[in-house]
Amino acid sequence: MKHLEIDRTLQGSVTLPAEAGKEKEMLELVGLWKPDAIRDSDGTRLSDEILKLGYPIYSTTCLVRADQAWARAHPDQLARKYLMSDPVTATGSTVEIRLLDGFSADKYAIDTDSTPTQFWEVIDRTNGDTVSPSSWDFDVDSGTLVIRNATAFHRYTVSFLVWVIWDSTSMYNHITNSWTIPPIQGVDPYLKPTWDHLMEYFEAYLDKLPDTEVVRLTTLAYHFVIDSDEMNHDKYRDWHGYGEAVSPEALADFAKQKGYALRPEHFVDQGYYNNSYRVPAKEYRDWMDFVHRFVVEYGRELVRRIHVRGKKAAVFWGDHWAGMEPYSPRFQEIGIDINIGACEDGVALRRLADSPGPQIKEIRLYPYFFPDVFKQGGDPTAESRRNWMKIRRALFRQGIDRIGHGGYLRLALGFPEFIRHVADICDEFRMLKEQAHGTKPAGTGVRVAVLDAWGGLRSWINHMNPDQKFHVIRPDTFEVAGSNALECLSGLPVDVSFLSIDEVLAAGRVPAGIDVLLTEGTEGTAWSGGYLWKNPSLSTAVRAFVHAGGAFVGIGDPSAAEHQGQCFQLGDLLGVQKEKGNSMSVLARPMILTENHFITADLQGCLDVGGDKSWTFLSGRTTQVLAASGNHVHLAVNEFGSGRCAYIAGLPYSAENSRVLLRTILWCARKEEALERWHAANPTLDVGAWPERRVWAVANSVSTLQKSRVFLGTGEAVEVEIPAYAVQFFSMD
Amino acid sequence: MKHLEIDRTLQGSVTLPAEAGKEKEMLELVGLWKPDAIRDSDGTRLSDEILKLGYPIYSTTCLVRADQAWARAHPDQLARKYLMSDPVTATGSTVEIRLLDGFSADKYAIDTDSTPTQFWEVIDRTNGDTVSPSSWDFDVDSGTLVIRNATAFHRYTVSFLVWVIWDSTSMYNHITNSWTIPPIQGVDPYLKPTWDHLMEYFEAYLDKLPDTEVVRLTTLAYHFVIDSDEMNHDKYRDWHGYGEAVSPEALADFAKQKGYALRPEHFVDQGYYNNSYRVPAKEYRDWMDFVHRFVVEYGRELVRRIHVRGKKAAVFWGDHWAGMEPYSPRFQEIGIDINIGACEDGVALRRLADSPGPQIKEIRLYPYFFPDVFKQGGDPTAESRRNWMKIRRALFRQGIDRIGHGGYLRLALGFPEFIRHVADICDEFRMLKEQAHGTKPAGTGVRVAVLDAWGGLRSWINHMNPDQKFHVIRPDTFEVAGSNALECLSGLPVDVSFLSIDEVLAAGRVPAGIDVLLTEGTEGTAWSGGYLWKNPSLSTAVRAFVHAGGAFVGIGDPSAAEHQGQCFQLGDLLGVQKEKGNSMSVLARPMILTENHFITADLQGCLDVGGDKSWTFLSGRTTQVLAASGNHVHLAVNEFGSGRCAYIAGLPYSAENSRVLLRTILWCARKEEALERWHAANPTLDVGAWPERRVWAVANSVSTLQKSRVFLGTGEAVEVEIPAYAVQFFSMD
Repeated sequence: MKHLEIDRTLQGSVTLPAEAGKEKEMLELVGLWKPDAIRDSDGTRLSDEILKLGYPIYSTTCLVRADQAWARAHPDQLARKYLMSDPVTATGSTVEIRLLDGFSADKYAIDTDSTPTQFWEVIDRTNGDTVSPSSWDFDVDSGTLVIRNATAFHRYTVSFLVWVIWDSTSMYNHITNSWTIPPIQGVDPYLKPTWDHLMEYFEAYLDKLPDTEVVRLTTLAYHFVIDSDEMNHDKYRDWHGYGEAVSPEALADFAKQKGYALRPEHFVDQGYYNNSYRVPAKEYRDWMDFVHRFVVEYGRELVRRIHVRGKKAAVFWGDHWAGMEPYSPRFQEIGIDINIGACEDGVALRRLADSPGPQIKEIRLYPYFFPDVFKQGGDPTAESRRNWMKIRRALFRQGIDRIGHGGYLRLALGFPEFIRHVADICDEFRMLKEQAHGTKPAGTGVRVAVLDAWGGLRSWINHMNPDQKFHVIRPDTFEVAGSNALECLSGLPVDVSFLSIDEVLAAGRVPAGIDVLLTEGTEGTAWSGGYLWKNPSLSTAVRAFVHAGGAFVGIGDPSAAEHQGQCFQLGDLLGVQKEKGNSMSVLARPMILTENHFITADLQGCLDVGGDKSWTFLSGRTTQVLAASGNHVHLAVNEFGSGRCAYIAGLPYSAENSRVLLRTILWCARKEEALERWHAANPTLDVGAWPERRVWAVANSVSTLQKSRVFLGTGEAVEVEIPAYAVQFFSMD
Repeated sequence: MKHLEIDRTLQGSVTLPAEAGKEKEMLELVGLWKPDAIRDSDGTRLSDEILKLGYPIYSTTCLVRADQAWARAHPDQLARKYLMSDPVTATGSTVEIRLLDGFSADKYAIDTDSTPTQFWEVIDRTNGDTVSPSSWDFDVDSGTLVIRNATAFHRYTVSFLVWVIWDSTSMYNHITNSWTIPPIQGVDPYLKPTWDHLMEYFEAYLDKLPDTEVVRLTTLAYHFVIDSDEMNHDKYRDWHGYGEAVSPEALADFAKQKGYALRPEHFVDQGYYNNSYRVPAKEYRDWMDFVHRFVVEYGRELVRRIHVRGKKAAVFWGDHWAGMEPYSPRFQEIGIDINIGACEDGVALRRLADSPGPQIKEIRLYPYFFPDVFKQGGDPTAESRRNWMKIRRALFRQGIDRIGHGGYLRLALGFPEFIRHVADICDEFRMLKEQAHGTKPAGTGVRVAVLDAWGGLRSWINHMNPDQKFHVIRPDTFEVAGSNALECLSGLPVDVSFLSIDEVLAAGRVPAGIDVLLTEGTEGTAWSGGYLWKNPSLSTAVRAFVHAGGAFVGIGDPSAAEHQGQCFQLGDLLGVQKEKGNSMSVLARPMILTENHFITADLQGCLDVGGDKSWTFLSGRTTQVLAASGNHVHLAVNEFGSGRCAYIAGLPYSAENSRVLLRTILWCARKEEALERWHAANPTLDVGAWPERRVWAVANSVSTLQKSRVFLGTGEAVEVEIPAYAVQFFSMD
C-alpha cells in the first residue's frame, strides 16, 4: 500500500465562467483552478481580451428566448400552456370565475385566439362532470367566465390556454438575483414562423462566434413547468413537466399521430398537472412521446448547423429540459457531443454519468455564482462542500469527463476561501479522473433495479416524501428534506438500473439480470407505484422473483395500495403492514427486536428513518424487526421461498444510512461476504478501487479525521487515517 | 356567593360489590362508602350473612354462559362465527391452508356440521375472485383445506365457521386475572333448543333468588368480538362487533327477512370484519338490524320473567353487548329498569347519561377490583382519580343516578388510600346528585352535532386515531392514545347530538336545529366518513349549511377522500388541504400565524394536537392559521358565506384542549359572549350551574391548587380557589 499524493500539476477538465471586466482576476483563477475551457453565462459576455486567451470557448444560447425583439413583435408565437383556474364554489346558480385570479398577471395572458368553446373546459369538481360550453360565457375584457345553471355549492374550474409572457428562468432571475433587464419571453418552435425564424437567427448567431469551439444549448425547446401566483411566488413546480409545449397546432398534430384528441383535462389533471409524483396516465405518456419526438427533430436541426461549422454541440440539462429525455434512445439522434448536467448531489451525478451515449459528460457544480448565495454572510463553501462530499462518493462508482461552474465571476471573487476550496475540488477531480476513470471500479457485482412507474426514462431523478412540502427554507427554491434512499444508493458499490412497473407487467415477470428489486416512495405516487399495485400481475411477478431467490427491498410505502384487506400488497413478503385506520381492530403481532444483525452492525445509535411514526406494524410470523420506535417498525427483514426481503420506513441520506442500505442489499442478495473486499469498517469512509489501474482511494465525508480498517481486494485489511473531508489515493502495488 | 360544604351525611346511590368471607371488612366499607345496594360479581358469591343485612341485592347473571353443564352436553349449541384464515400465498398450483393456523386452539373448533361447500368461501385475495368449491377439498381430520388449480403467487383465504368453545370474557379472566375454573362456554339463544333451555334455566335461577331485588343481566345474547391467536393473545378486537351471532338458522332467517342471503365475505370483510372504523356496508347494517331485533325479543322475554317475580331488571353494557343498541328506539321494548354502564371517562359517562329512556342509570367505575391493577406496586387510586376527573366534568353536563364498583372486595381492602378515595368519590357524587341533578344545567345553548357514518346508533363511542394501534402498554387491553376530541366535548356546556351521513344524504341537507357540525376521525374511516365524502350531495349539504350561517369544525381528517384533485373535499371551507403525495408539486400558500385570536386566548404554550406533522398545508386565501408546527397546520379558521369553519389536526384530551374546543365551537357559532356566563378563566377549572336549584360548582381537574375568576350567571365575576382535584359547591344566593 503506497500513498499517492494528489497531483496538483494536473491541468484541465474544468470549465471556467468568465466575465468581461474581470480579466485580471480571471487569470489568477486560471492559475488556481487550471481550466481548459471558458464559458459565458446567461447575463454575462466575454470580452475580446478573454476570447484571445486561446482557451476553447463555450458559448451559451437558449434559442427560444434569444431574440426578444422578434418575440415581442410576434406575441402569437409565445409558448402556451393550460392552466386550471383556482376552484370557485358556487353559492347560487351563477358562478363567475376570473380566470387569472391567483395567477401572476406578469407571467400569463389568456389566449383568446384559440376559440374558448373549442379549447377550454369547464368542470364541476364536485361531481367531475364537464359543463357544456352552451352553459358558459367568457368576457374577454374582464377575463371572467360566467357559468349559468350551476349547481349551488358545487366547485367549478376552468381549464384555459394562456400565453407565457415571462419565461420562468428570467422571472426567477429577476426575483431572486435582482435582474433588471426587461423580462424575457420564450417562443414556441413548434409554430412554423418561429421555427423558420429561429433557424435563420441561429445561423446569424453562429456567424458571430468565430472563436467558439462549443455551442452550449440551454436545453432545447420547452421550459419545465413553474407556475406563479398573484404575488409572483411559485405556485406549482415540476422540473420534469411537459405542460408548456401546448399549441393548437401541436394538439391537432397529436390527434393525427396518436389517433385521438387530448382534452384540456389531460393537461390540468384535476390540478395535479401530471406532476412526476403522479402515476403517469397513458394520455400524458403519449403527450410526452409526441413532444419528445419534436424536440429531437428540433435539436437535430440545431446540432446539424453547429456541426456544419466544425463546432461541437453541448446541451445543458436544465431550464428548457422538457422533451429532451437523455435516457430515451431517440435522444442520441440529436447528435449532441457534450452533455452538461447541473449537479448538486450523487443522484444528479449519476443521472449524468449513467446516461447512455458517447457524449462527453460535464457537471455544473452548485452553488452558481449568483447573489442568492454569494452575498454578505453567505457561505458558498459550506454548500459546495456538502454537495461535493455526495458527488465524490458517486464518482467512485461512475466517472464523468469535466466539471465547471456558472454565474458571475465577480461574485465568487469576493469569497477567497471558496476560491481555494474549488481549487481543491478541481485537483481531486483531476486526480480521480487521471487515476481511475475510464476503467470499471471494483464492486460487489450485485445488480439492483429501482422499480417505479417511470422506470429508465426517469433514471436518477430525485423524489421526496411529503416532508419536502413542509420544509420551506427559501420561497424560490427548495432544500431536500426527508427520505432519500436514492442518494444513499448513488455511492454504493452496486450496479443500478431503473425498471418500470409497465415493463414487469408487459413481461409478466421481473426481467432477468436483477438481483435486488428496490422500491422507494410514498403511497399513491408514481415512485411507490400507486394503484398499479392492485394489478395482480405485478405482485405475482415480484413474489415469483423473490421466491426463486431474488431480493426485494421496500423503502417508504412499498407496494402500497389499499386492496383486499391490506395496504402493502407485498405484506406477505415484507412481514409488515401499514395501519391507515381500517385495520385498527386488527392487533399487531407483539414485537421483539433483533439486536444483532448483519444489516445494523455498523449503526452507532438509532436508525434515522426521517421520523418516529412509520404507522407500520408487525404482521408476519417470521419477520425480524431490526429497528423500531415503540411499536412503529422502522426496519424489518423477512424471507420468502429462497429470497429475502427488507422493509425500511425511510432513509434520509447520511453516511450511516448509506451503510445500512448497502448491508440491506447485500444481506437480501446473500452477498454478505462482499464486505470483505474494498470496504472500510468505518461507515463515514467510502472506498473506491480500480483494479485495471492498480489504484484505490478512500474518501472521508465528515468534518473530523477518521480512522478505519479497510479491506483490500485480497481480503487483507489495512489501517487508514483520512483527514476531514479528504480523499486519499493508494497504489495496489 | 356562599360556599356549600360537601354533605358527608348523605347516603346511598352507591352499589357495593360484596364477597363471602369478607363480611366484617364489608361492614367497615359500608360506613365509609354508604352504599344502598350490594352486588355479586362474576366469580364471587354472597354469603347468607351478607344477604341478611337488609340491603337491596343485585344478582348478576349472564344467561348464555350460566349453565356450563348444558353447554358441554350440547356442543352444537355454542356461539358461532366466521373467521378468515390467515392468508396463505400459493407457491405452486396447490395451496394447503390449515384453517386454524394463527388462531387459538383453545377458543375455536371448526364447525364442520354446516356443510363447508355451502357455508364457506375461499377467496383469491390477489384478484378478489371467489374460488369455486369444486376446486377445493377440506380434510376434517387435519383441519386443512386444499385448493387445486391455484394461481401461483396469489394469496388465498378461507372464510369458515367455527364454534367459540371458550367465552372471550372467561378467557380474559383466565389470562389476566389468573382464573383457574374450567373455561366457560357461551351458547346461542337463537337456536331453539338453547332458547327453550335458557328460559327454563332462568326460571329456576330466579327461584333461587328470594332476596334479590335487582337481576342484573350481563348484557344479553352475543359477546362483542375478540379473536385470539395461537398464543391466546388478542388478534382482533371490536367492542361493538356483531360477528359472534352467526348460525345457519340465523343466516336462513336473515335471507327470508331481508330478501337476500349474506355471503361469508359480508362477515369477514377482507379481514377487517366490519370493525367500527369501517364505513358500514349495507349488508352489515342489515345484519346488525337482524341481530338487534332478535336480541330485543330475547331480552324482552327475560325481563318479562324478572318483572313477573316483582324484581327489577338491570342490564350491564358490556361483554354480551352485541345487538343491544341502547340508542335504538327498539331497545326500549326490552323493558329494562336499570342501565349499568362501565365508565372510564367522560365519553363513557355521556354514553350512559345521554341514552334515551326512563331507565335508572348507574355507572360501574374503573378499575375493577381485579389482580391486574390491585397487585403489589399497583396504583388503583391514580387510575381511579384520572377517570373521575373526566367523569365528574361530564356529570356537570348530564347527570346519572348511581355509581358502583365491581370485582373482588378482598383485593380492594389491601389499598386503604383507594378506600378513602372512593369514599370521597361517593360523597362528591351524592352531593352533586342532591344539589343539581334532575335539573338542567346552565349552558351556552350551542347545539353541536357530531357527524360520522354511524350517527346516533354509535353516540358517545370512543374512537382513536392510528396512534392507538401503536400504543400498547398491556397486551390484554388498551390505554387511550392520540386524538380524542370527543372526551374534550363530553364536559363542555354545549348540547351534543350525533348525526349520520346517511341522514344528511337522505334529507339532502343538514337537519334543522344544529349550530355546529363537528367531525373527528382518520381518513377512510367511518368516523371521518371515508368514501362517503365523494358523494356530491354530502359536501353540498354541508356547504349550504355553513353558507347560511352554520359552523363546521373538522378534527383529524375532515371530509377526507381523494376526489377531483383534493383530499379534504371541504378544503374550500376549511382553507387547508392535506398532502398525500400527489400534490407535491403544488406549493402551499406561505403561512403567517395569527398570534392573537379568541380561540387560542387561553393557551399557555403550544397547542398539543398529538404530534408535529399534520401533513396539512395552507391552501385558502382567507384562512387564518392559529397554530402550526413549521408549515404543518395545526389549527386554522376560515369563513364561508355567513358561516365559520375550523380545522384542528387532532385534539387529545386535556383541560387546555377542552378549552380550545369550547372556544372553537363558540367562535364558529358566533357565540363568543357565552364565555361571560358560568365560566372560569382558568382552563383547568370546570364550572357547572343549576339555576333551578340556585347552586353552582367548580371542579379542579389537576394536581395543584388553582385560582380563577369565575363568571356567574349575571356576568359578574368572583374569585375562587379550589384545592387539587377538588370540587366546591356554591349557592347562587
